[in-house]
Amino acid sequence: MFQIDRKITGRLGRAGTICTPHGAISTPAFVAVGTKATVKSLTPAQLEEIGVGVVLGNAYHLYLEPGEAIVRRAGGIGAFMGWRGPTMTDSGGFQVFSLGAALEASGRSKIAPQREHPNKRKNVGVFQNRALLANIDEDGVTFTSYKDGSEHRFTPERSIEIQQAIGADIIFAFDECTSPTADKKYQREAMERTHRWAARSLESHLQLTTDNSQLLFGIVQGGRFEDLRKESAQTIGSMEFDGFGIGGSFDKRDMGNAVRWVSEILPEEKPRHLLGIGNPLDLFEAVENGCDTFDCVAPTREARTGALYTKHGRINILNARYRRDFNPVDEGCACYTCKNFSAAYVSHLFRSGEILANTLATIHNVHFIVRLVAGMRQAILENCWGAFRKAFHCEYRE
Amino acid sequence: MFQIDRKITGRLGRAGTICTPHGAISTPAFVAVGTKATVKSLTPAQLEEIGVGVVLGNAYHLYLEPGEAIVRRAGGIGAFMGWRGPTMTDSGGFQVFSLGAALEASGRSKIAPQREHPNKRKNVGVFQNRALLANIDEDGVTFTSYKDGSEHRFTPERSIEIQQAIGADIIFAFDECTSPTADKKYQREAMERTHRWAARSLESHLQLTTDNSQLLFGIVQGGRFEDLRKESAQTIGSMEFDGFGIGGSFDKRDMGNAVRWVSEILPEEKPRHLLGIGNPLDLFEAVENGCDTFDCVAPTREARTGALYTKHGRINILNARYRRDFNPVDEGCACYTCKNFSAAYVSHLFRSGEILANTLATIHNVHFIVRLVAGMRQAILENCWGAFRKAFHCEYRE
Repeated sequence: MFQIDRKITGRLGRAGTICTPHGAISTPAFVAVGTKATVKSLTPAQLEEIGVGVVLGNAYHLYLEPGEAIVRRAGGIGAFMGWRGPTMTDSGGFQVFSLGAALEASGRSKIAPQREHPNKRKNVGVFQNRALLANIDEDGVTFTSYKDGSEHRFTPERSIEIQQAIGADIIFAFDECTSPTADKKYQREAMERTHRWAARSLESHLQLTTDNSQLLFGIVQGGRFEDLRKESAQTIGSMEFDGFGIGGSFDKRDMGNAVRWVSEILPEEKPRHLLGIGNPLDLFEAVENGCDTFDCVAPTREARTGALYTKHGRINILNARYRRDFNPVDEGCACYTCKNFSAAYVSHLFRSGEILANTLATIHNVHFIVRLVAGMRQAILENCWGAFRKAFHCEYRE
Repeated sequence: MFQIDRKITGRLGRAGTICTPHGAISTPAFVAVGTKATVKSLTPAQLEEIGVGVVLGNAYHLYLEPGEAIVRRAGGIGAFMGWRGPTMTDSGGFQVFSLGAALEASGRSKIAPQREHPNKRKNVGVFQNRALLANIDEDGVTFTSYKDGSEHRFTPERSIEIQQAIGADIIFAFDECTSPTADKKYQREAMERTHRWAARSLESHLQLTTDNSQLLFGIVQGGRFEDLRKESAQTIGSMEFDGFGIGGSFDKRDMGNAVRWVSEILPEEKPRHLLGIGNPLDLFEAVENGCDTFDCVAPTREARTGALYTKHGRINILNARYRRDFNPVDEGCACYTCKNFSAAYVSHLFRSGEILANTLATIHNVHFIVRLVAGMRQAILENCWGAFRKAFHCEYRE
């Protein structure tokens, strides 16, 4: 199911191959985010042309719309969205908590808002978070739809059932995703609950599965605390998961450390996915410290605001200087956008509020990240990781 | 420059070929509307795959953003937007009048609104239309930008200068586009002004042009009145234009007649473009009565609202029945959307407000119209126009 093709000398990082029913994923690999069974503004044909290897949908969103039964009837998320390659789904844990907050912020909540993050709160019980419209108990979470305020409930068993219906090649255990700033007491509570939910997710998956083709990844939590991360890696790593997710509740500056602590403990022969990380410089940290795949909305979300990656750093295409810049967005880039259009044209599309602005910018950003990660893989295979890393960092400014 | 390949027996319609510096246009041909140098939501690669033969930009919009100088610097509209095929630009006459109204409606005007159409008005001078923020005089029109309220002026000479800078293969004389409901007195005044502006457009074009590659089409007006239409066709048809536009100021039910009156008079050996018509059933009327090309925003604009063409008529993909319809939008359709996605998926994208909904719906609608018009051409070439028309009308319900 996973093979290591070559390791970075003296580091935890490696190039590998994950086999799925819909083809192999060459790692390290950037996983394009397709929350609602679409990578925003791109067709599957464009994803293929870019060289995207795998797409990640979201169980929470697809459960709400169109509903997992429809996705199953369509033949699973890949068939539904016309994507022939491998797919993953996130369990919905993160959204169950975070989108309650979005609903509240939009003013549709009748409950008096409490602006604190759930993990900072002192005055409400640990297992109840009325402000975010999500009530956590040992069994699961009752939450309110961000769409219409209706009430729903996820448990580890229900999340697995939904993810099996959605039918991605790789699915995740249902976890509680905490804030990077949560105190240690809360991180431990959430981590221990995540461990119990992991065991239930695994048991449920093994009971419900009709074949063994769908891979289940357990999720390591523990925030920025070394002892918690290691304990979580030990506990989750000892369960019979097919691979592992590393929950992203740490500050940017803690990320490399947290990933390293975890990767040193997790079984080497199983793949590791870092949840929610995708900034170019972060990717070097992640890969070097043993992550095989990672998903992030940044390349697509930033594209839609006109923030485009170039070898010299991120630019804002709405800056006046690009109105008359007849060069490509990133000189030498081989993406469809850079091969066919000038920065002036992309700038014009953004200024005119044209839909195509999103498409061309997203193609460029996703291509940039996919090529960067493909370059990392090549560098590992050719044993020149250090030189590759150095060359990129010399040119790229955040 | 234009050759007739075959005529419809006993009718004015014909199949033909227009030669341009960027390739031949096989007629009848649907011209995809790319107002701001983009066919909304589609890449040029998608336009090519659909089989679009020619794209129409708009001088008014491109003058305001990014400005015609930038389009010229980019190498003209085709190079700017990455479209290798033939292009046209509308002169901006229609927008100069109609978008003043949009500005006023949005509440940005400081002038007390007068809700009447300019051609219905009684209390203001014929040559002044403050309500619409456009002042018409014999020399040209002073108007207010719909973007920022700034004041601008178009004359026939200025429109030609702008269109030469934008550099489309086929450009149009600057005209005054009237309302279908305008009274005959005003239609005559506007028509006669359009004739004087046509002569100035032509003279200006011949003076300014550096080669003879850019084709200039004169525009026939005259509303729904037979005598005016014939007089206009006579006058404009006798000028040395490379082809002709037929201004669309008539009701739907008058369209076939108006086009026939004009086509009978216009020189047979020159191409005729019908402005702003694109509904499937209207296209049969237009082609049968002698039009070679036509542009319309309907297929793209309606696509973005979820109104999709099928062989049985137009459907609303947001209708509940499509949530679980795992067939293509239009069974047997060979477009990218129908070959790769179900109606359920397209419906899901619309319900979720996803950008890709626009793209897939637009691909389908434009493909539908392009294939329909290609079918008309084939039917003319194979001398079976009547049978083709009948077969389509039997199935298609508006």
